[in-house]
Amino acid sequence: MPNWLLPENIADVLPSEARKIEDLRRLMLDNFRLYGYELVMPPMLEYVESLLAGAGQDTDLRTFKLVDQLSGRLLGLRADMTTQVARIDAHLLNRNTVTRLCYAGSVLHTRPSGLHATREPLQIGCEMYGHAGLEADAEIQELALASLALAGFDDVRLDLSHVGVLRAILLEDPVAKRDEAQLHSLLRGKDVPGLEEITNNYSATTRNALLALPHLYGDVDVLAKAREVLPALPGITKALSELAALAASAIGRAQVAIDLADLRGYQYESGAMFALYVAGLPNAVARGGRYDQVGEAFGRARPATGFSLDLRELARLLPTAERKHSIRAPWGNAPELREKIAELRKAGEVVIQSMPGHDNVQDEFECDRVLVLDNGNWILKNLG
Amino acid sequence: MPNWLLPENIADVLPSEARKIEDLRRLMLDNFRLYGYELVMPPMLEYVESLLAGAGQDTDLRTFKLVDQLSGRLLGLRADMTTQVARIDAHLLNRNTVTRLCYAGSVLHTRPSGLHATREPLQIGCEMYGHAGLEADAEIQELALASLALAGFDDVRLDLSHVGVLRAILLEDPVAKRDEAQLHSLLRGKDVPGLEEITNNYSATTRNALLALPHLYGDVDVLAKAREVLPALPGITKALSELAALAASAIGRAQVAIDLADLRGYQYESGAMFALYVAGLPNAVARGGRYDQVGEAFGRARPATGFSLDLRELARLLPTAERKHSIRAPWGNAPELREKIAELRKAGEVVIQSMPGHDNVQDEFECDRVLVLDNGNWILKNLG
Repeated sequence: MPNWLLPENIADVLPSEARKIEDLRRLMLDNFRLYGYELVMPPMLEYVESLLAGAGQDTDLRTFKLVDQLSGRLLGLRADMTTQVARIDAHLLNRNTVTRLCYAGSVLHTRPSGLHATREPLQIGCEMYGHAGLEADAEIQELALASLALAGFDDVRLDLSHVGVLRAILLEDPVAKRDEAQLHSLLRGKDVPGLEEITNNYSATTRNALLALPHLYGDVDVLAKAREVLPALPGITKALSELAALAASAIGRAQVAIDLADLRGYQYESGAMFALYVAGLPNAVARGGRYDQVGEAFGRARPATGFSLDLRELARLLPTAERKHSIRAPWGNAPELREKIAELRKAGEVVIQSMPGHDNVQDEFECDRVLVLDNGNWILKNLG
Repeated sequence: MPNWLLPENIADVLPSEARKIEDLRRLMLDNFRLYGYELVMPPMLEYVESLLAGAGQDTDLRTFKLVDQLSGRLLGLRADMTTQVARIDAHLLNRNTVTRLCYAGSVLHTRPSGLHATREPLQIGCEMYGHAGLEADAEIQELALASLALAGFDDVRLDLSHVGVLRAILLEDPVAKRDEAQLHSLLRGKDVPGLEEITNNYSATTRNALLALPHLYGDVDVLAKAREVLPALPGITKALSELAALAASAIGRAQVAIDLADLRGYQYESGAMFALYVAGLPNAVARGGRYDQVGEAFGRARPATGFSLDLRELARLLPTAERKHSIRAPWGNAPELREKIAELRKAGEVVIQSMPGHDNVQDEFECDRVLVLDNGNWILKNLG
């Protein structure tokens, strides 16, 4: 096997693609900043106990493990940055007030999440800690939608869901509560026959509510229908009114869909959850929601809500960046030439000095002008 | 052990430091771009055969290894990005002309290079492939100096060296050539007694030349002295004239020093080498040079020269970034409020909406103004 082949689902990013990713990264981080989100950079490697604290078995299986030569302890390569940022909020910053943090960096997965998925997503996102109210969820949702708008996507679908609905149903019924994991998986798969079987010996109220969930899918009118068919438990009423408020705040920015059986993330999430979809990709491009329990693993449970997306995947959906017009200049040490080049670069022009005997071929830049000496002055000439 | 402790020589980067790093990263990448360097993003993980192709034992020992579940093969976490970029030049881009590439990303080391050194440097740098002439070395040196100038360092020392001197001496003397590795290490340590012993049975010419090298250290006048005391071999003459040209091109940008015994990188480098020093740090902050042989491991030896530095270390030397002035705004859904906030953010202002019941404490932003409703209009008021 030639030694320049890369592992499966691992790839280099070449210039035209790298430029798109870099541009998106800056646009999004700059926008997070305008909302007051402070940048943090957690490490690539941590002790596994720390990295996987508060994370589920899924994340554990996706995490590369290796041995630290200095301590002899097991290290993990981060597969997700969310718990890292929660650790920073809980122990490094240790504030009692609202804390807004954002981040961007590579994460690594032992196995790809799909046939063509990368094992090295470039995760970017933001998190707000310390506020349990819906205002925090609304700000995070707004930032997620703004991030896709900045990337140029104008046809976005927002899927809203809420773990509070299932939680409220199970709180009333200890029999059903015992089947929580299985119910969760049947609901995610919208497996109605499976649900009919498992709910056979539940109370009629629980059974009817659980069997209704897979059908509570569609536009915002679903919320009115849910109020009719689901029991009027406090947890359900609260969840439905939160979803209504979040749906309202997305009007004009996205096409809103409700899916009360979508419980991906049920294990870690604790409130409203959302997923964003764009044309051309069946999977969600961004996911977010409330996950108040994550900080608990670090001894300091704080209200938390956030979102993240993979910049590499998103950039792949965008058209190739236009090549930047640039200037070709000869090599030389003459002060006039050097000054002229410095001046052009200061004005933002890309100036590529030819190495003697070579021309340039580039992906990212297109020389449309050339610097030539004309009557003792260096001037720009257009290239055919 | 509490689960929020990090491994030794691994650290989070908190907001004020992260902002400095992000600002420097952008300044440097933007400047590389103005010179026509195209951005690439090699992966964090590769097969070890590929990652360590063309690298020395040093890099091997510093590289974390782990097993790929998909292939069962051994993977390495990159400890250096230079060979990765050489692989991209050789096989992905596969151009016959001059190629300029730049990169920025985390690398990981099994052991720190010093007591307080990080095991996760943030490496940034650029490389030029395809031109063997000194013009390429000069451009790379210029970019390295410009990078430190952009970071605000105005008192920089440039140490120049050249592997061609020792190579030329050994080419003439098969006896001495057999001791190459040992000579290299004695010269690096400026170990004159050791050199006297090992050169005892060499020819007088070789012995005198090798014993002269540790003393050929100082300002550019050293080059004239070297021409006197070293044999006039073609390789030595060429090396000295290259150093003279590179020293001349750095005048006014750095204080230049020559050190003909400084052979760090001797194994991979093939021509002129440089190191940059700033006040406050005994180690070089940036290193660069010519390493024409690296591409050979990928079956395509191309002339190559480049430099890199660690952004984390560099940022640590800089004063804390000033906190950005920002605006505090109340939470609310009123369209006038939302429009006013959007307008301020569009103008580049950081606007932090207070979550009901909370104030903000931040490292990165300082609220010096507040948005208040005054006679039906949202206006800015200064904060004491």
